[in-house]
Amino acid sequence: MTIDAALTRLADRFGDKFTTSDAIREHHGQNESYYPDTPPDGVLFPESTQDVSDAVKICAEEGCPVVPWGVGTSLEGHALAFQGGISMDMSKMDKVLEIHAEDLDAVVQPGVTREALNTELRATGLFFPVDPGANATLGGMAATRASGTNAVRYGTMRENVLALEAVLADGRIIRAGSRARKSSSGYDLKNLIVGSEGTLAIITELTVRLQGTPESITSAVCPFESVEGAVSAVIETIQMGIPVARIEFLDPGAIDSFNKYAGFDMPVKPHLFLEFHGTEAGTAEQAELFGAIAAEHGAGEFQWATTLEERNRLWAARHNGYFAMKSMQPGAKVVTTDVCVPISRLAEALLTTMKDMETSPLLASIVGHVGDGNFHVAILTDPEKPGDLKEAKRMAHDMNKLALELGGTVTGEHGIGRGKMEYMEAEHGEAVQVMATLKKAMDPLNILNPGKIVAVN
Amino acid sequence: MTIDAALTRLADRFGDKFTTSDAIREHHGQNESYYPDTPPDGVLFPESTQDVSDAVKICAEEGCPVVPWGVGTSLEGHALAFQGGISMDMSKMDKVLEIHAEDLDAVVQPGVTREALNTELRATGLFFPVDPGANATLGGMAATRASGTNAVRYGTMRENVLALEAVLADGRIIRAGSRARKSSSGYDLKNLIVGSEGTLAIITELTVRLQGTPESITSAVCPFESVEGAVSAVIETIQMGIPVARIEFLDPGAIDSFNKYAGFDMPVKPHLFLEFHGTEAGTAEQAELFGAIAAEHGAGEFQWATTLEERNRLWAARHNGYFAMKSMQPGAKVVTTDVCVPISRLAEALLTTMKDMETSPLLASIVGHVGDGNFHVAILTDPEKPGDLKEAKRMAHDMNKLALELGGTVTGEHGIGRGKMEYMEAEHGEAVQVMATLKKAMDPLNILNPGKIVAVN
Repeated sequence: MTIDAALTRLADRFGDKFTTSDAIREHHGQNESYYPDTPPDGVLFPESTQDVSDAVKICAEEGCPVVPWGVGTSLEGHALAFQGGISMDMSKMDKVLEIHAEDLDAVVQPGVTREALNTELRATGLFFPVDPGANATLGGMAATRASGTNAVRYGTMRENVLALEAVLADGRIIRAGSRARKSSSGYDLKNLIVGSEGTLAIITELTVRLQGTPESITSAVCPFESVEGAVSAVIETIQMGIPVARIEFLDPGAIDSFNKYAGFDMPVKPHLFLEFHGTEAGTAEQAELFGAIAAEHGAGEFQWATTLEERNRLWAARHNGYFAMKSMQPGAKVVTTDVCVPISRLAEALLTTMKDMETSPLLASIVGHVGDGNFHVAILTDPEKPGDLKEAKRMAHDMNKLALELGGTVTGEHGIGRGKMEYMEAEHGEAVQVMATLKKAMDPLNILNPGKIVAVN
Repeated sequence: MTIDAALTRLADRFGDKFTTSDAIREHHGQNESYYPDTPPDGVLFPESTQDVSDAVKICAEEGCPVVPWGVGTSLEGHALAFQGGISMDMSKMDKVLEIHAEDLDAVVQPGVTREALNTELRATGLFFPVDPGANATLGGMAATRASGTNAVRYGTMRENVLALEAVLADGRIIRAGSRARKSSSGYDLKNLIVGSEGTLAIITELTVRLQGTPESITSAVCPFESVEGAVSAVIETIQMGIPVARIEFLDPGAIDSFNKYAGFDMPVKPHLFLEFHGTEAGTAEQAELFGAIAAEHGAGEFQWATTLEERNRLWAARHNGYFAMKSMQPGAKVVTTDVCVPISRLAEALLTTMKDMETSPLLASIVGHVGDGNFHVAILTDPEKPGDLKEAKRMAHDMNKLALELGGTVTGEHGIGRGKMEYMEAEHGEAVQVMATLKKAMDPLNILNPGKIVAVN
């Protein structure tokens, strides 16, 4: 019962679908964060649920860790095989299986990316709203309980995954949830697996909610004199029930990087980026209501983006914020963290963090899905200077601590992975023990993505 | 280690808060469905989380079942102590603890009813949207994953409970979720406990989402020539993204009972009852868009209810549908069941059920939260005729079977309790074993509402 024995058996069973080649292992040992490369012992490319089940059975028999892999965009080391074992790369399971236009749902394999799904949906007049920025796989997004810019209107993966199929730690295949819009039938296993980061089961199929493409979409960019003004405008917008589709905060540092990286010419001030979805009359009314609120809170001149090209340029800039920021310091590595607080505490959270950024020697900026109280800091570090990483981690640590003090959570959408396990006790208290109990009950051999979310011994 | 020993210890520890009086036990043995009265061995009225925890510890030590009780409106025997033990009546824990207007949330004890919360919110301009009809407690609604007429717009208890405190089977107290609007931090224990019907933990506090009271609310009643026409109108309304706040189907039998019970004068045809929430312009536009859709599908003349009085009369009638139906046959007992199907299969589900109702000797009617694909049948039985209950159960059984065949669920909002356990395997397959694993892990002595949702041995 060894990892080596598992590798031999997997090679026998799966032939070309399994590899221990250095190049592929190395690719599956990389990450977008500050973790050192951590290649797995082998990589399996399953092509069916049965493949996943068969592989997990072999790994269970041999005590070999199984770490699911989407496209490797997670930020807290979720997809790294820190305890060795195999990376389970879901990229070959990339088919859109069914589109039910009348029911506004689609059944997909976990390796489908959100952009691929939206491309496939183009002719239907429907779209899949969850948008974490990166072109992640839907399986990875579900496992991380991802969300992004649209969540304020359309919800996170929790609300947008209706049902799933998954392989358990002993290879059994289960289904959770259904295509019915709601159910009171038994324990919510679907939501237990969504966000469990591959530690309880491996997702092999998803049924996701779709939305009708709005008749009218308008975007706007709006500078504010102060952070407090921008946040007050956000709070009033949410309280009034204006159904904004996106409401993003950007600090002056982020705006500066956008100007330089993407050729914008925005005043270097706190900004809100907004998007309104609805009928022609509806989006006009939303924009007018928001405009009145913003004016009361020191907003400057709006820039409107109504054509598809203008909107694409705007949101591409927002999505490329990571790269814009990175370009501010050639050769830099980015340390990023996200927290989420009750919206009434958002101004305090942002101002405290910005004050810390001012006194830190490192360059950093803030972008945030502030309609949900969620924001990110990207901190630039020089990989040649070991003190930089330490200082970046110090800043991130203070943010996480602050979020908990303000009644929030240490991660709104990035997940726990390995990077944030140290905060689990502080955030959840005794409930962490319940999580460990569930992990042990569902994965008694601790082979599914071990050493993530919750430690079990 | 006996139930009797637990009763003695509970009487010692809790004094007047604990009773074994016949009258109170009998009250806690009743139900709104067809189950015979099943009084518990004693009733505890805890006044704090610590009371709940202390009581559960005693019950764990003595192996005594603990069955939580809200106001006893559940329909599948959820709150009945079929295996003896104590009823834990949460009615003394009925305080609204905090209202956070800026964050649109409130922290409440589980014994607060939805009407009590909305009364308390009246001055704030906010409301709590989940509305299952009955004035249930929020703890009971969360435990049942209840929803109702507004869920199509505002979601079910799953989406509307942000966080909770609960007592585990060994008396430990945990918190799950937070006041942050979203989180990717660890397993979703909040949603595991919501809908678990008191079998995994006893909810002792809830943080619920609130909504701003819309500037404009209008309601409409609209007859259709056919069930297919009404359902097609619903499907198009949802597909177009019209954000209806309520869209209810009523069959001719239900309309007939409303006319007789509540003095309405509606044509005895299939109807939709609707409500639109938004700005003045927004609700007008929604109503106009819906009107155009309805006209294409054989709608008759609309009746609008724009004043508060007219709306209250309309929705009171809808909420009293159970009693209206009951009044059609003096002395009748009502057997009611609910299913939920993908909306594309809704017409088929309704028509098949209505055909069955036509040939059955029993009087029955349908009302449904059809924007979600969810509908209810109320079947009248004469308690003096044992064949009636058998026939009612046969009808309900056929509906449940049909819902599963159509890709739906055997309960959209009533829950499993004891009444629908027989369908768990058919609906969830192997996943039922996972549910049993979780139940055993979290309640190894099987004292929390035993014999509900999933059987463990």
